[in-house]
Amino acid sequence: MKTYTYPQSRKWFQRAAKSIPCGIYGHFSPAPLVPPSAYPFFVDRAEGSRFVDIDGNEFIDYMCAYGPMVLGYNRPEVEEAARKQAENVNCGPTPGKPMVELAEYLVDLVQGMDWAYFAKNGNDVTTYALMVARAATGRRKIIKVAGGYHGVAPWTQGGDHAGIIPEDVSNILTVEWNNLGALTALVQQHKGEIAGFIATPYHHPTFVDNELPAGGYWKSVETLCRKEGIVLIIDDVRCGFRLDMRGSHAYFGFQPDLVCFCKAIANGHPISALMGSGALKTPASKVFYTGSYWFSAAPMAAALATLKLLKKIDGPANMQKTGKELCDGLVDLADKHGFKLKVTGVPSMPYLRLTDDDSLMLHQRWCAECTRRGAYFTSHHNWFLSTAHTREDILRTLAIADEAFAVLRKQL
Amino acid sequence: MKTYTYPQSRKWFQRAAKSIPCGIYGHFSPAPLVPPSAYPFFVDRAEGSRFVDIDGNEFIDYMCAYGPMVLGYNRPEVEEAARKQAENVNCGPTPGKPMVELAEYLVDLVQGMDWAYFAKNGNDVTTYALMVARAATGRRKIIKVAGGYHGVAPWTQGGDHAGIIPEDVSNILTVEWNNLGALTALVQQHKGEIAGFIATPYHHPTFVDNELPAGGYWKSVETLCRKEGIVLIIDDVRCGFRLDMRGSHAYFGFQPDLVCFCKAIANGHPISALMGSGALKTPASKVFYTGSYWFSAAPMAAALATLKLLKKIDGPANMQKTGKELCDGLVDLADKHGFKLKVTGVPSMPYLRLTDDDSLMLHQRWCAECTRRGAYFTSHHNWFLSTAHTREDILRTLAIADEAFAVLRKQL
Repeated sequence: MKTYTYPQSRKWFQRAAKSIPCGIYGHFSPAPLVPPSAYPFFVDRAEGSRFVDIDGNEFIDYMCAYGPMVLGYNRPEVEEAARKQAENVNCGPTPGKPMVELAEYLVDLVQGMDWAYFAKNGNDVTTYALMVARAATGRRKIIKVAGGYHGVAPWTQGGDHAGIIPEDVSNILTVEWNNLGALTALVQQHKGEIAGFIATPYHHPTFVDNELPAGGYWKSVETLCRKEGIVLIIDDVRCGFRLDMRGSHAYFGFQPDLVCFCKAIANGHPISALMGSGALKTPASKVFYTGSYWFSAAPMAAALATLKLLKKIDGPANMQKTGKELCDGLVDLADKHGFKLKVTGVPSMPYLRLTDDDSLMLHQRWCAECTRRGAYFTSHHNWFLSTAHTREDILRTLAIADEAFAVLRKQL
Repeated sequence: MKTYTYPQSRKWFQRAAKSIPCGIYGHFSPAPLVPPSAYPFFVDRAEGSRFVDIDGNEFIDYMCAYGPMVLGYNRPEVEEAARKQAENVNCGPTPGKPMVELAEYLVDLVQGMDWAYFAKNGNDVTTYALMVARAATGRRKIIKVAGGYHGVAPWTQGGDHAGIIPEDVSNILTVEWNNLGALTALVQQHKGEIAGFIATPYHHPTFVDNELPAGGYWKSVETLCRKEGIVLIIDDVRCGFRLDMRGSHAYFGFQPDLVCFCKAIANGHPISALMGSGALKTPASKVFYTGSYWFSAAPMAAALATLKLLKKIDGPANMQKTGKELCDGLVDLADKHGFKLKVTGVPSMPYLRLTDDDSLMLHQRWCAECTRRGAYFTSHHNWFLSTAHTREDILRTLAIADEAFAVLRKQL
């Protein structure tokens, strides 16, 4: 197979570094892509499950823009809905009807949620969730799971991170994932002080294996929160609509008070949503929270089109099935070449790791060899499936992975 | 003249209130629109300087979506640039070339700024500015101007607001606008503790007259900040590109370290930018800050098209001229009817107030009478001009205002 090179990506990165801190920053930074020479840095165009970088290399994309792409890039039904709305009005003088229609649709769709509030990014709504929990309880402290990612606002970051001050995180307590005993103890230790517990539906940190909730974990957490008057906040930004159209809490069988959505909600159009129980609607109304572009109608129309289409084709089941085919195939190929590939998380958002060495180095080398051949894999972050990934994509990806394993075996 | 009624807006607001906290929230909430019966709540379509609500009423828009609309709704050159980019890729697997091109264009355009960092909303970049200032100085405290608006993140809000805890604001000090003595005293009182001073280029709070910087104010503030190692942050979110294409600091003749842009930067497409001096590029690189949609290419292409067009037609001068014609005409009309209309702020973003009573009630009634006749005015917030406002719009608006003053005079 041809292996890709990236002279244009390198050239544009040099340009970027002159006028942009880090050149490319945040979760799109090339820093965790090891070795960087295996990866493209700038995209030229994208369609369905594939994208073409500025060097003309084509990739089957298993990062899906780190989640937003769920129905395929440039999905016609979604683009058409956004375009039609924007031709009338997008960022207008007031909201348009799509805001109401989307709220009503989400309230019908998502289990146990009575209202919706729209913003732009995931972090907008995780932060709003904290404020609502504090407004509702009159308490200050929030418990989060160690290693859990809820965005980049100061409260979400470690106290030793650049730009973060102790007061940003002095009311954020952390607890180990799946550790009900530790959570219960922490709640007792701060009895009457905990406003909310925020967690992802399952644990999907970067650089380490992902973890599903232990049997009974969520039901026990729910009971504990109800008993102690703690607002249970689910950050469904990453998993939302990739596990269950009713919200990932429905998939795992429990009922939170607040749920945060973003990523897959509008197939890449910029919108996020906080949804909540009826009991929290009044506190939510009292918190002042807004943004210049939050009422724009085109992303709302795109979200409606995305959700309706995902529901119609049972997108989550589709992605779980495709993801399972991919992961099963990759595990078999690893075995054939004498490697052990471990799959954690869920098939629609799998985290993979070669366990043959104690570091991530071998795994990084394999992901790099696959990417160089057109299967866009990262080694540090869960991957994402979309409904646009075809059987042909999976077969092509397995052929790439086969060759990458062979190259790796030869090098060792 | 025909006066408008809003049965569809009212019906849809009732629906909205069922599934959305406040029905319509934030700065788009109808709460400050007095009486609400004079105002439309939902837009159907918009073009140029005008919009049509869901009852079919047409308005000349002087709020411009609270700022983002600067070249007219659905400006073809901007929409075409965004559409062409989105046909290739919008929210993609990596950034596209427009990110680099936009950063380079802004660095060339904006006075004294060496880099740009992109996010979605104004508050994203005001918060990032604080983090950069803290990372650069190792200090915690920030001084802001009393009544200044920098968004909705917890640090921007008063400690008594719902959902805000004391630790959110314990490092935020406030000082009176234009009060150099008080600022100097505050800096001395907290010597070596102040990371940054954040302010808008001129003072544009809501519900009260706006205030320009006193002669020499900004130069003195700049000198003070340099001497004390304080990062000078300008929040140009609202004024940016309505006063001067080089940034509002160029208009007022001083040099900040960080400048926040949003609103007018892309004519309603969702993007914001923090720009900074070369000295702050390394601290900026150390702060982790990102969002799902921040790398989307279409708003960047829209921003490039917007800024180039604004520069080509000298948008700020255009809006200042149109705004002056409008305000001069309105003041004359007020005088003709025996009222006193006070104009503060700048002509491209004027704040108007009838000073004939001590409350805002008379002014509210006049704004309501104008809105009912098709000139969309708010009474609590500065208005916005755009380059799409024509001489015909101004003449029509003056005719509306004339009748509204007559109605008011008759009622008194």
